[in-house]
Amino acid sequence: MHGAGNDYVYVNCFDEQPPADITATAIAMSDRHKGIGADGLILICPSEQADARMRMFNADGSESEMCGNGIRCVAKYVYDHGICSQENLKIETGNGVLDLQLEVSGSIAHRVRVNMGRPILKSSDIPTSLAGDPPVNVPLHVAGRDLMVTCVSMGNPHCITFIDELSDEWVYGVGPEIENHPAFPNRVNAEFIQVVSPTEINMRVWERGSGETQACGTGACASLVAGVLAGLTERRVLCHLLGGDLELEWSETDEVFMTGEAVEVFHGKWPVG
Amino acid sequence: MHGAGNDYVYVNCFDEQPPADITATAIAMSDRHKGIGADGLILICPSEQADARMRMFNADGSESEMCGNGIRCVAKYVYDHGICSQENLKIETGNGVLDLQLEVSGSIAHRVRVNMGRPILKSSDIPTSLAGDPPVNVPLHVAGRDLMVTCVSMGNPHCITFIDELSDEWVYGVGPEIENHPAFPNRVNAEFIQVVSPTEINMRVWERGSGETQACGTGACASLVAGVLAGLTERRVLCHLLGGDLELEWSETDEVFMTGEAVEVFHGKWPVG
Repeated sequence: MHGAGNDYVYVNCFDEQPPADITATAIAMSDRHKGIGADGLILICPSEQADARMRMFNADGSESEMCGNGIRCVAKYVYDHGICSQENLKIETGNGVLDLQLEVSGSIAHRVRVNMGRPILKSSDIPTSLAGDPPVNVPLHVAGRDLMVTCVSMGNPHCITFIDELSDEWVYGVGPEIENHPAFPNRVNAEFIQVVSPTEINMRVWERGSGETQACGTGACASLVAGVLAGLTERRVLCHLLGGDLELEWSETDEVFMTGEAVEVFHGKWPVG
Repeated sequence: MHGAGNDYVYVNCFDEQPPADITATAIAMSDRHKGIGADGLILICPSEQADARMRMFNADGSESEMCGNGIRCVAKYVYDHGICSQENLKIETGNGVLDLQLEVSGSIAHRVRVNMGRPILKSSDIPTSLAGDPPVNVPLHVAGRDLMVTCVSMGNPHCITFIDELSDEWVYGVGPEIENHPAFPNRVNAEFIQVVSPTEINMRVWERGSGETQACGTGACASLVAGVLAGLTERRVLCHLLGGDLELEWSETDEVFMTGEAVEVFHGKWPVG
């Protein structure tokens, strides 16, 4: 399945045992030439606190807490396959239990709205050594340029740069330099945002540890928050990414909601042992 | 399935109808984020002249005549799935009927030897404007360098450069310049070969229209022929590619034989309509 081009292999662990060696399985399955090919492996598991639990493993086998594009697919899966029958779901993640709302037609979930929680704005919690809680339009000298950047965490750290025009030069030339800049002790995801209007943005992202990806859900949410704080966008925007569109809203309750498609591409059997 | 990391989606057209719109299906399936993810689509079909027929479509939907890594997988499939029971097979391709020999253990074919036919050495048939039938160690000025290159066709054109050490600079810097050099009216595949010993070579390849790939079967065969003609290798070599190893032999009957693995990775269902 994929959400905005962010593709994972999903295993239904309501019906099957998880793989014995999850790390090795995630690495083997994710290989785009000799495996199934994916950004990683997500296990859809029973939960004691919620309707389902997602466990997410990256293509290198490491486990991550949460993926905003992945959780939409988990919600679609449990609904479409009859594991849950209600259109409001709770999914347990490594970042706690999240609330999701399905858009259903013909007993198939097509789009999913996720409550991504509150942004983290305290610089020491983002974490960054840049000044401000959060740093908004502060100078950062990187890749021979003097940029003005804004930093926000959505559970993982993001550094947002508003630019006139998106280009490979920004993403590949500047992205890795921001990722590894000493102002970010845990490294950082680098978002490049072109503001089309106060309600519409174009985004490309250089993800920490992954390079350019087709979509980054937390990065899109962080970019909305940055846009509002920098006075460039309203609190609801449509975000165009390489892999598709996400609708974003920073509510008056301080929570960020992300709505986007979830697509089941194919299903199959992977030989074990 | 994949052969040396060259991965295709295979459809068993002995049992099923081919897709109604093959071009659109090949493009959709090949997408590595929103489809299954592959170098293309290969249909395994009945044949009136051979044990089976392969029809091969690239990731852009265009049809190609033959793929040396793909045909091994076709042979493995028809054997493993009981369509054919003999270990010597004939497969029909867009380049005629090819002979293949399976290495079987436990009623599963693991490796396949393919008779790739005779190399084409006449410069006007390769085609290239470089001098010689074929051009062997002739100068080519490209990417600001004076290279010595050797050209061979295995049904498709190849330009082989023997170098001291493989590097990204050769593949990405020089490869596309060779591909589009005016000496090659139909463009050309560019192979970079490091000779380890007269019986062992390391290869990277810049494929015409595709960029770097993990393996190119015809390119490996052409590189063996070039190595023999340039006096650098014997007529049997082991070729190490990014995606795996191929054993190559240019026989006294002038035919080139390629032996390598064929691997079934997973099977699944793709929704139609």
